[in-house]
Amino acid sequence: MQTFFRYNWKIREEWYTWCENVSEEELLSQRTGGMESILKTFFHIVDVEWSWIRLLKGKEDFQEDFEQFNSLDKVKALDAKFRPEVEAYVDAWEPAMDRRPLVLPQEDGSVELLAAGEVMRHVIAHQIHHIGQLSVWSRELGLKPVSPNLIGHSLIKPER
Amino acid sequence: MQTFFRYNWKIREEWYTWCENVSEEELLSQRTGGMESILKTFFHIVDVEWSWIRLLKGKEDFQEDFEQFNSLDKVKALDAKFRPEVEAYVDAWEPAMDRRPLVLPQEDGSVELLAAGEVMRHVIAHQIHHIGQLSVWSRELGLKPVSPNLIGHSLIKPER
Repeated sequence: MQTFFRYNWKIREEWYTWCENVSEEELLSQRTGGMESILKTFFHIVDVEWSWIRLLKGKEDFQEDFEQFNSLDKVKALDAKFRPEVEAYVDAWEPAMDRRPLVLPQEDGSVELLAAGEVMRHVIAHQIHHIGQLSVWSRELGLKPVSPNLIGHSLIKPER
Repeated sequence: MQTFFRYNWKIREEWYTWCENVSEEELLSQRTGGMESILKTFFHIVDVEWSWIRLLKGKEDFQEDFEQFNSLDKVKALDAKFRPEVEAYVDAWEPAMDRRPLVLPQEDGSVELLAAGEVMRHVIAHQIHHIGQLSVWSRELGLKPVSPNLIGHSLIKPER
């Protein structure tokens, strides 16, 4: 689990660097699919990651609006603010926690019962999916996207 | 690891069903980014998944060309042909295999040394990334993409 989160954070940092060479107008420009803008995608990734970890911890969720975080610096600052709490939870994660129940009350009064291991993997897949969308928008802008390769980052050291 | 592969196979099946409602012309039409067509993306996902598993098993790689698999039925048949071997490897996967070395000879005579756990996660992230690209192309076609949610598929049963 830790390997995938470290991968996602590394790729996210590389995309933030990519964003530095793109105008704020393009970062906020409305596009087809996904979260409809590059910056809103990053806000959404950061928001969703933190919100699920908060729920897994039995804490309150984040209720802020993108309008308050509509610049690269603001999104990066939000990410940096949330990261220590997310990282601490991820680092403490153990496979034995996979089936730990998460009870989510629904608006209709029913409850949804999830397993913590599903939620963690959902958060991982969530970012990777949105990054795939960014890669298409990047090509539409005529720009080379960040490589999504997981190999080549020395995330796991092979035995010798 | 098994959970992510099962998720990817489930989402892939849902996309194959989605494809049934799209003309072959649209499935083969050239698009911006990624593998440049919807069907080629699925061929690539199936090819890459199988090829890496073959390498992990120390077996020969797949060298076929997309031109021989340029219809939905052909890609699905290829996927069905490869799946049992991939599934057997995935089912037999254990966390203790994470650091098992994979030596990849490079064209310049050097070797790249990877860890099997990196390769498995690379294969997982590879599909999710490409599915993200499909979701943008789907919206560009005015069609609702398959939901990429990992939760809601009962992939892990919560303790009660």
